[in-house]
Amino acid sequence: MPNSFGKLFTVTTWGESHGGAVGVVVDGCPPRLPLEAAEIQAELDRRRPGQSDLVTPRQEEDKVEILSGLFEGRTTGAPLLMLVRNADARPGAYDEMKEKFRPSHADYTYQAKYGIRDHRGGGRSSARETIGRVAAGAVAKKILRLAGGVEIRAFVTRLHDIEAPRPDHFPTLEEIEASPVRCPHAATAARMIERIKAVRAEGDSVGGLIECRVRAVPPGLGEPVFDRLEADLAKAMLSLPATKGFEIGSGFAGTLLKGSAHNDPFEIREGRVRTQTNHSGGVQGGISNGEEICFRVAFKPTATILQPQKTVDVAGHAAELQGRGRHDPCVLPRAVPIVEAMAALVLVDHWMRQGAQNQTFKF
Amino acid sequence: MPNSFGKLFTVTTWGESHGGAVGVVVDGCPPRLPLEAAEIQAELDRRRPGQSDLVTPRQEEDKVEILSGLFEGRTTGAPLLMLVRNADARPGAYDEMKEKFRPSHADYTYQAKYGIRDHRGGGRSSARETIGRVAAGAVAKKILRLAGGVEIRAFVTRLHDIEAPRPDHFPTLEEIEASPVRCPHAATAARMIERIKAVRAEGDSVGGLIECRVRAVPPGLGEPVFDRLEADLAKAMLSLPATKGFEIGSGFAGTLLKGSAHNDPFEIREGRVRTQTNHSGGVQGGISNGEEICFRVAFKPTATILQPQKTVDVAGHAAELQGRGRHDPCVLPRAVPIVEAMAALVLVDHWMRQGAQNQTFKF
Amino acid sequence: MPNSFGKLFTVTTWGESHGGAVGVVVDGCPPRLPLEAAEIQAELDRRRPGQSDLVTPRQEEDKVEILSGLFEGRTTGAPLLMLVRNADARPGAYDEMKEKFRPSHADYTYQAKYGIRDHRGGGRSSARETIGRVAAGAVAKKILRLAGGVEIRAFVTRLHDIEAPRPDHFPTLEEIEASPVRCPHAATAARMIERIKAVRAEGDSVGGLIECRVRAVPPGLGEPVFDRLEADLAKAMLSLPATKGFEIGSGFAGTLLKGSAHNDPFEIREGRVRTQTNHSGGVQGGISNGEEICFRVAFKPTATILQPQKTVDVAGHAAELQGRGRHDPCVLPRAVPIVEAMAALVLVDHWMRQGAQNQTFKF
Amino acid sequence: MPNSFGKLFTVTTWGESHGGAVGVVVDGCPPRLPLEAAEIQAELDRRRPGQSDLVTPRQEEDKVEILSGLFEGRTTGAPLLMLVRNADARPGAYDEMKEKFRPSHADYTYQAKYGIRDHRGGGRSSARETIGRVAAGAVAKKILRLAGGVEIRAFVTRLHDIEAPRPDHFPTLEEIEASPVRCPHAATAARMIERIKAVRAEGDSVGGLIECRVRAVPPGLGEPVFDRLEADLAKAMLSLPATKGFEIGSGFAGTLLKGSAHNDPFEIREGRVRTQTNHSGGVQGGISNGEEICFRVAFKPTATILQPQKTVDVAGHAAELQGRGRHDPCVLPRAVPIVEAMAALVLVDHWMRQGAQNQTFKF
Repeated sequence: MPNSFGKLFTVTTWGESHGGAVGVVVDGCPPRLPLEAAEIQAELDRRRPGQSDLVTPRQEEDKVEILSGLFEGRTTGAPLLMLVRNADARPGAYDEMKEKFRPSHADYTYQAKYGIRDHRGGGRSSARETIGRVAAGAVAKKILRLAGGVEIRAFVTRLHDIEAPRPDHFPTLEEIEASPVRCPHAATAARMIERIKAVRAEGDSVGGLIECRVRAVPPGLGEPVFDRLEADLAKAMLSLPATKGFEIGSGFAGTLLKGSAHNDPFEIREGRVRTQTNHSGGVQGGISNGEEICFRVAFKPTATILQPQKTVDVAGHAAELQGRGRHDPCVLPRAVPIVEAMAALVLVDHWMRQGAQNQTFKF
Repeated sequence: MPNSFGKLFTVTTWGESHGGAVGVVVDGCPPRLPLEAAEIQAELDRRRPGQSDLVTPRQEEDKVEILSGLFEGRTTGAPLLMLVRNADARPGAYDEMKEKFRPSHADYTYQAKYGIRDHRGGGRSSARETIGRVAAGAVAKKILRLAGGVEIRAFVTRLHDIEAPRPDHFPTLEEIEASPVRCPHAATAARMIERIKAVRAEGDSVGGLIECRVRAVPPGLGEPVFDRLEADLAKAMLSLPATKGFEIGSGFAGTLLKGSAHNDPFEIREGRVRTQTNHSGGVQGGISNGEEICFRVAFKPTATILQPQKTVDVAGHAAELQGRGRHDPCVLPRAVPIVEAMAALVLVDHWMRQGAQNQTFKF
Repeated sequence: MPNSFGKLFTVTTWGESHGGAVGVVVDGCPPRLPLEAAEIQAELDRRRPGQSDLVTPRQEEDKVEILSGLFEGRTTGAPLLMLVRNADARPGAYDEMKEKFRPSHADYTYQAKYGIRDHRGGGRSSARETIGRVAAGAVAKKILRLAGGVEIRAFVTRLHDIEAPRPDHFPTLEEIEASPVRCPHAATAARMIERIKAVRAEGDSVGGLIECRVRAVPPGLGEPVFDRLEADLAKAMLSLPATKGFEIGSGFAGTLLKGSAHNDPFEIREGRVRTQTNHSGGVQGGISNGEEICFRVAFKPTATILQPQKTVDVAGHAAELQGRGRHDPCVLPRAVPIVEAMAALVLVDHWMRQGAQNQTFKF
Repeated sequence: MPNSFGKLFTVTTWGESHGGAVGVVVDGCPPRLPLEAAEIQAELDRRRPGQSDLVTPRQEEDKVEILSGLFEGRTTGAPLLMLVRNADARPGAYDEMKEKFRPSHADYTYQAKYGIRDHRGGGRSSARETIGRVAAGAVAKKILRLAGGVEIRAFVTRLHDIEAPRPDHFPTLEEIEASPVRCPHAATAARMIERIKAVRAEGDSVGGLIECRVRAVPPGLGEPVFDRLEADLAKAMLSLPATKGFEIGSGFAGTLLKGSAHNDPFEIREGRVRTQTNHSGGVQGGISNGEEICFRVAFKPTATILQPQKTVDVAGHAAELQGRGRHDPCVLPRAVPIVEAMAALVLVDHWMRQGAQNQTFKF
């Protein structure tokens, strides 16, 4: 099931950029969860096109409809079907894509894999697919918040070569949303915005890093051997369009430390087992240790640029592609809620798996 | 199934460091594959303790037994059960671990998750678990080689801060195996060996980066949306002990490029669609594009060190742990075949999934 | 994923009887399959309410919309989302069900399981859920027909105690659809219709047996050990509302034969290995042997009856329930296309699994 | 994963009749379960060959070894590997099977599916495969007993045409084990034994029905839509060698009742919601209702008989097969513990799924 994610809280996304709608089925949602469409909508609004002058002006209201699984304001345990109609579809704008493969997009590989391709706006490979993820993630976030006070916070920590200082506290949602670039450090955010505008003016694009932190995760989530928490987080993040890397805790930089400096000594603090440092990033042996979970995701520069590019056409001839139309010069601001959504999907699934294993049996 | 990996070529590992044996079941192996125990053994010998003076001197022959699934030298389509007996078990050597949580190991998290813990040598969290992965990976590698001439080659590219120059060709197995540190650049390998010996003398440890390249993968492997090839590779790598990061193609460094420099232009070369550069790392939109797949994995410094460390005991008191005994001051040399094995498991699974979808039906 | 079925051709149904819509996601559908909504609609029309005077007069057009996965008349390999709006919802008609558990329905067990229940028309437990199965099954049937000329034919073989003679040929669709009761033996069909009208007049209900035959299945479909073809068929059938039993080939009656009479001798016929008899029902050791697959499913009498019944209310008091409203006095006529759909889902999934395993590798 | 069963309590069996060993991996077993090899052995002894003069005299001690997952007498949450060595292998006795397909066995279908076949004693299709199921089932039974006092009791209710009267109480293990035929009604058991001896003298075989009852299952186990409790039970039973049918509650006979007689009225009894009758067999809408679960399984007569049979050989020529050697003239006595094991696997899996969904979250 290539379009499904999660073993117990299973989400299946469907829909193409310029088809009738995009959406998601959430199977395995616990019953009796209070839920309103407005809560889903709030998260979708954070990834919506046209939300600021930094992102694509494609006009999409992205209004969610919940067609099943809710009854009198609560989930019933039955699958939730959530969908968003595609409104601002301009199929004609994509005629060139029918004949030519866009560099560093999925056009060629989809053609090679399937022998057929819905070229309109990238079809299934469009980032509009992530609407379903964000909708499902909104449900997951609510469960985690109600069940354990878990908070998930992603933000832009580096854009191109502009890096924000490491936050000295768990960033608040307000700090992050204060700027359209979603970097909680105001001065850096301002520089990032300038950079986005500058590359847009060049018809070019930039990438960067998103950091995500999660607090109040209890010890014990994650499964050895293959379904380690960091393994599932890595998969979740690398399943997002435009991602090229993932690191947790000390990450790549940690490989420059010796073990004596890298190990996290244990101590008793606040009445429970804690670590003094957190190079582990909240996970040890694949299982949460109760510390803050902290990971970073690398997003490449947007593949769509408004400059002429060399490519080939479907007949196998050399061709030139002249990018035009609406696009995001940088995906990071809109990717922030998507990263949070995926983290929530991983965590709620492991929360349920732990519930299956440990809370049912009192041996 | 936390101990299983793969949807069609499914491996399930089992066993603890100091239990009776460790091993693996491979379910879904195609029938009629010629296979001998010696081929499995050759890969196990590459991860075996005691293979050089750089690694733990634990004396384990790690001799594989194949108990099912083979008949007259060929697989039958039935599950393969492969096991390795634990020989050099010294349970007494681990008595201290019974009472104290080793920093940056899985002792505390296993205890928190399960309420019980086989402390002997780390039990299930021991890297001996990877024996099953390597055995299954040897089968996967052979399938890929016979089916499509696919070659998978991992090597140490950076150890601590000692980095090898980027290879100008696809490294040969001989180049890699020429040095016990498994870096194909001989001069750098010599420096790496000195570093390992130096930190070992200090009772300390180091980490680094392993790079893995795969060639001859046909276009079309990998599934949108969640089971992208890079997503499954990321999960596979982050499921390995001691890993903290994964990047594919341009990876983290690629985020410093603009889109105009990062995009891989298409051209016709050797009669087929090729890219001029390979920032994508052989995967676009989650699907292989026929170029070399190239990714890197960050391994932290070994958590076991021979220096005193602060920790807490199971009763919740502050304690000091004095590491001793046999250990690897650096896991990278022995991790090379493990990385290859995991890459092979991902690829053979996607190969079979593509077979299911595309080759059965002629519409 | 309780609402999903199939490992490679995976269908997930969603929706409640009186919610916004019911539908299905089909994930794993092979690309390039020619497909039109009209083909889906034709199957839905066979299970539609109001299609004859034997079934519930609930007025539902059950018109299918395909929102994703199709492009220019062909599947793309992306998920198909198909939905049917609920039109003739009369929530008020079900107020009594809010307070009282209907005997032999799912009201009590859903309440016990979830602690919440969408009581309107049975909510998720309504047979309207099977709309998604029939829509997905229509796709599966087409694949099987195009790929291998496979034909699936179900029909009513016994209604209450009225049993049709064993057909002497593979029944045609025309023979089955000639009567609203879907029994291909015209004289028996007439008697069945009388029986349904008689029990309806009593406010009562009846059940019976549906037989299903499948021809042109190649040898080799089905997997040992747990995913035997008959095991998956049994699960598929027992997952349908109102089913109480399944038998394949000689079934329960075969237990009265001795082995010497029951065994199916092999012979060479039409140039290939055939059996002289077919007590095996087309499956041996869990794998198709190329003979006609033949199984039967027992459906209990409809639980909804228009007579007063003893029950309890949600507060735990004894109560009486007076059935009223629209219902089917016998589910069998409308269940025929549903049985076919489920058989198609099982077979196409195993067809794909066999493709994964056997056709990709040429050892 | 054709050799795996269960979503959360996942068992994977492996091994062939005349290979090195047969066994099972149990992944997902809850931690801290007290467990000893003797408990597994007790169940294996009930399915062992040579246990009475009614069954095959193949001499197999079937002694279980537990190689992983246990620590100081308790499960750790890690996978359990249990194996049984094959002792009395007489490969030469099966040379005829190499060349000729045994009627109503899996010889031909395995050859057709895989293009290779371990013919020795049926290889993977041998009923020795069920050793792994019984071992895993013993663990499942213990969990269910400790967690909820659940008792599972299977017995032979009809052998050939000899039917036992319906028991007026939940049969005790002692009553069932009192006779080697495992029918709790002593007088009927004696007649069954005579029948088995008579058909064995003819070189023939017989089948029959096994009934299974389960008590103390709490309301709420089972999942809509596809993973209904009866659907998973049906799959479990039809996955056993030699089974041809499954029915639950009123089963096939219930189709002869009208709805007014078949419905199970609710009442309050013993302080909770109960049904007055149990035509539902303990399951409504796919979910347990707290009543006794009751189902029956049809086993065909053993395919191996000691009479000459017509068949074809692997070269496609007509041939005659002269059965000889050791076999069971009736599989039912030894199938009783296997049916119980499969029922336990289904129930423990659904118990864990319910734990995941309902007990983790307090909305």
